[in-house]
Amino acid sequence: MDLKEYVASVENFPKEGILFRDITPLMQSGEAFHEATAKLIAFAKEVGAEIIAGPESRGFIFGCPVAYELKIGFVPVRKPGKLPRKTISYKYDLEYGSNELHMHADSIKPKQKVLIIDDLLATGGTVEATIKLVEDMGGEVVGCAFLIELEDLKGRELLKDYNVYSVMKY
Amino acid sequence: MDLKEYVASVENFPKEGILFRDITPLMQSGEAFHEATAKLIAFAKEVGAEIIAGPESRGFIFGCPVAYELKIGFVPVRKPGKLPRKTISYKYDLEYGSNELHMHADSIKPKQKVLIIDDLLATGGTVEATIKLVEDMGGEVVGCAFLIELEDLKGRELLKDYNVYSVMKY
Repeated sequence: MDLKEYVASVENFPKEGILFRDITPLMQSGEAFHEATAKLIAFAKEVGAEIIAGPESRGFIFGCPVAYELKIGFVPVRKPGKLPRKTISYKYDLEYGSNELHMHADSIKPKQKVLIIDDLLATGGTVEATIKLVEDMGGEVVGCAFLIELEDLKGRELLKDYNVYSVMKY
Repeated sequence: MDLKEYVASVENFPKEGILFRDITPLMQSGEAFHEATAKLIAFAKEVGAEIIAGPESRGFIFGCPVAYELKIGFVPVRKPGKLPRKTISYKYDLEYGSNELHMHADSIKPKQKVLIIDDLLATGGTVEATIKLVEDMGGEVVGCAFLIELEDLKGRELLKDYNVYSVMKY
């Protein structure tokens, strides 16, 4: 099954000059969604993940089925104002403006083996922020897994000290 | 296993006077997350769901594992500006202001049996909007399933023509 057949390429979204890789056709196909998720599950087993962390909201789409299948927990990484208890946060720069991510301060145990899952590896800013939060809590990042990797944006170089896996590369 | 032990009650979040039911401890426990999701999977089988629709972002948390397990598709219901292709939308009033939800216009096939999954049934505004979008595309809503139902808010009355299931009631 060629999973790329289930990714739509949409020009000039969300802004002029961007070629957006739309994964909703893949999610909409039971077979394609299952096969893509199964690949992420295989990687999670290989690295011995004890818990999954996923940035909102597309990190939930693949991270939650992986956690369910392996009977391990899932920890959401969220934008400001969404998590109700004490959080730790990390702010990072974007091309225009900045972004801030939060995790509950008690969400990762010291030495816990954490796999970060998101839909897309682009420049790597979101996953880098997530790594910092996990490591601040004493967790061990055993891998970073993505449905899609945009190789031109070189996010993998930023993650050179980590075990990185992507289901599809563009 | 008493799943309610994994729900934290946080006072005055997101604003004064609201008692927020925080499901992150449940998600963080592999066992509790698996058991709660398994109950939703059993309901999905019972109603013969052919596809799952879930509102962002917490509808993804339980909806995606259910879709994965049953090898059926998942369709995201999103806020404006998130879906890149042609959408249909529905706007509804909140206590303060309004909210607008979108689905890709080709995401549900006529007569397809759709199960809507979200984390919380409160007043029912979000699920009502989702039902309208699904039915506009000709889909058949075979059920609405939630992790938590806040009975005092009477969302179930709004959904009296539908098969409603919740894992936990408060």
